[in-house]
Amino acid sequence: MAKYPATDMDRTFWALADPTRRGVLERLMDEPGLSVSDLAGTFSLKLPGMTKHLDVLSDAGLITRSKTGRTVAVNLSPAPMRDAMAWLNRYERFWTVSLDRLAALVEEEETP
Amino acid sequence: MAKYPATDMDRTFWALADPTRRGVLERLMDEPGLSVSDLAGTFSLKLPGMTKHLDVLSDAGLITRSKTGRTVAVNLSPAPMRDAMAWLNRYERFWTVSLDRLAALVEEEETP
Repeated sequence: MAKYPATDMDRTFWALADPTRRGVLERLMDEPGLSVSDLAGTFSLKLPGMTKHLDVLSDAGLITRSKTGRTVAVNLSPAPMRDAMAWLNRYERFWTVSLDRLAALVEEEETP
Repeated sequence: MAKYPATDMDRTFWALADPTRRGVLERLMDEPGLSVSDLAGTFSLKLPGMTKHLDVLSDAGLITRSKTGRTVAVNLSPAPMRDAMAWLNRYERFWTVSLDRLAALVEEEETP
């Protein structure tokens, strides 16, 4: 279905649509600068498999990689999440309204 | 890379990783209950193309469809966005910190 150049937000949401990639971001939040091998080990992946995931995260601007000798350190770069969150934020009033309506219904049920 | 049963959050982020699908949600926010034909027209798509996008949104629980006669009305169902936003929210302090650091740097530059 995707026959257009991907926008930044497409890349952000696509990068987040995978539990391993979200897991990598969670790990990096707790422990910045982990190596690619550390991350591969954590998720029981071989290096090429982890590298593919890191490529997707890097294309989305969600991580940075820096090489020192033979070690590649990975760091979180969460700025693109801000746009994604701003987009989602516009819908907040809709789910808030729905929850309010639910609360009102529960109250009605409880009133004798 | 995806060789696992997709989680709810995978489906949410995947559904949002497309400008047409995000556009459909935006249209439905402004005008609830639009028909599939209305939506197809808005995005210059044929009915089957729009239906594929609506299937992805529906699988993610982001829209509901209800049929009356030959017309299918589409409505927003934004609850799954809440989990996605809660997930993103955990990273807010990181980009806030980065912005603070940037502001501090600008201030340093400006100090003679």
